[in-house]
Amino acid sequence: MTETSLTVAVIDPSRVRAAILEEGLRAAGVGTVVLVSDGPDLQARVAALKPDVVVVHLESPSRDILEQMSGISRHVERPVAMFVDRSDATMMQAAVDAGISAYVVDGLRTERIRPILDIAILRFNAFARLQRELLEAKSELADRKVIDRAKGILMSRKGLSEEESYKLLRRQAMNEKRKIIDIAKAIVTAADLLG
Amino acid sequence: MTETSLTVAVIDPSRVRAAILEEGLRAAGVGTVVLVSDGPDLQARVAALKPDVVVVHLESPSRDILEQMSGISRHVERPVAMFVDRSDATMMQAAVDAGISAYVVDGLRTERIRPILDIAILRFNAFARLQRELLEAKSELADRKVIDRAKGILMSRKGLSEEESYKLLRRQAMNEKRKIIDIAKAIVTAADLLG
Repeated sequence: MTETSLTVAVIDPSRVRAAILEEGLRAAGVGTVVLVSDGPDLQARVAALKPDVVVVHLESPSRDILEQMSGISRHVERPVAMFVDRSDATMMQAAVDAGISAYVVDGLRTERIRPILDIAILRFNAFARLQRELLEAKSELADRKVIDRAKGILMSRKGLSEEESYKLLRRQAMNEKRKIIDIAKAIVTAADLLG
Repeated sequence: MTETSLTVAVIDPSRVRAAILEEGLRAAGVGTVVLVSDGPDLQARVAALKPDVVVVHLESPSRDILEQMSGISRHVERPVAMFVDRSDATMMQAAVDAGISAYVVDGLRTERIRPILDIAILRFNAFARLQRELLEAKSELADRKVIDRAKGILMSRKGLSEEESYKLLRRQAMNEKRKIIDIAKAIVTAADLLG
C-alpha cells in the first residue's frame, strides 16, 4: 500500500498522554505531527493548521472534551480520531453523536494507528457527503416553497398560468441579474406587507 | 459499564477464521454467537436471525465480500463489523462506501471486540438516521413538485387561487379517503393524458 503523508494535529489535554501519542504517530510514520496545546482559540488554531486528521488521547472522555472535538469536526470540518483507555456506553453514544470519526477504546498500538486514521478520514468524508446532500435537499425544499408561493401570487393577481408566472420570475431575475429565489422572496415579502 | 447481551451473527467465508472469531466473541462474553455459513440466501438467513451486529473475519477483503456485506447493511439493515488482517487504500474506501460500520485492520483482540461492536452499532444507527432524513426530504420534495403541478393545473383550468386549489385537493382526498399526493398524481396523470 503506497501511503500518502498525513498532517496530524495532536490535541493535548494532558501533556504526558499527548507525548505518548505523538511518539506513536512518529513511529508509525504517518507524516507530519503537530502538537496543539489545549486552551483558548483551539478551533482557530486547528483551522489554521488544516490537518488531515485531529487526534486526541485520553484516559476517559468527558462531556467538555467531546463538545470541543465536536466543534472541530463540525466547524473546522476535520475528522477527529479519539483514543481512550476506557469508555462507558453513555460516552460512546455521546462520541458518535458528536461526529467523532474514530473512537478507539484501549487500542493505541503503533502498528494499528495508520489504518485507523485512514478509515476515520474516509468515514468523515462519507458522513459529510450525506450531510451535505441532506442540507441541499432541505434548502431546495425551502426555496421551492417560496418560489411556489410567489408563483401563486402572480397567478392570482395577474391571471397568469403557472408556466407564465415562472417565466415572469425568471425574466425578472435575468433582468436584475439576481437569482429566481431572491425575486420570489421579494414578491412574497411585498405581498405580505401590501396584502 | 453494564453491558447488554448482543446477538452476533458470524459470517463464515473461511471455516478456520470464523472459528477463531467465534471463539474470541465467546471469550469476550458478548452474548449469543451464531455461525452463519456463507452461500445462497445469506441475506434471508441473516434477516431471519435479526442479529444486533454482523461480524466477518478475513485475511483481506474482496469486492465480492464487500458487496455481500453491503447488501446486509443496506437491505437487512444490520450493522456490519469487518476484521481484516490487511487492507489497501482502495479496499478501505470500498468498505466505507459499502456502509461497513467498523472496518478494523489487524485489530482482532478479545478484549477490544466488545467496544468495537458497540461503536459499530451506534455508528450504524447514526448513519441510518441521516439517510432516513435524506430520503424523507427527497420524498417530500418529489411530492411537493407533483402537488404543485396539480395545484397549477387546477388554478389555470378552474380559475382558482392557489389556496382554493389546495383546499379542493384536500377536500377530494378526504372524500375519497386517500392522500393528497395520490389525488395530485391522478390530476397530473389525467392532465398529461387529456391535454
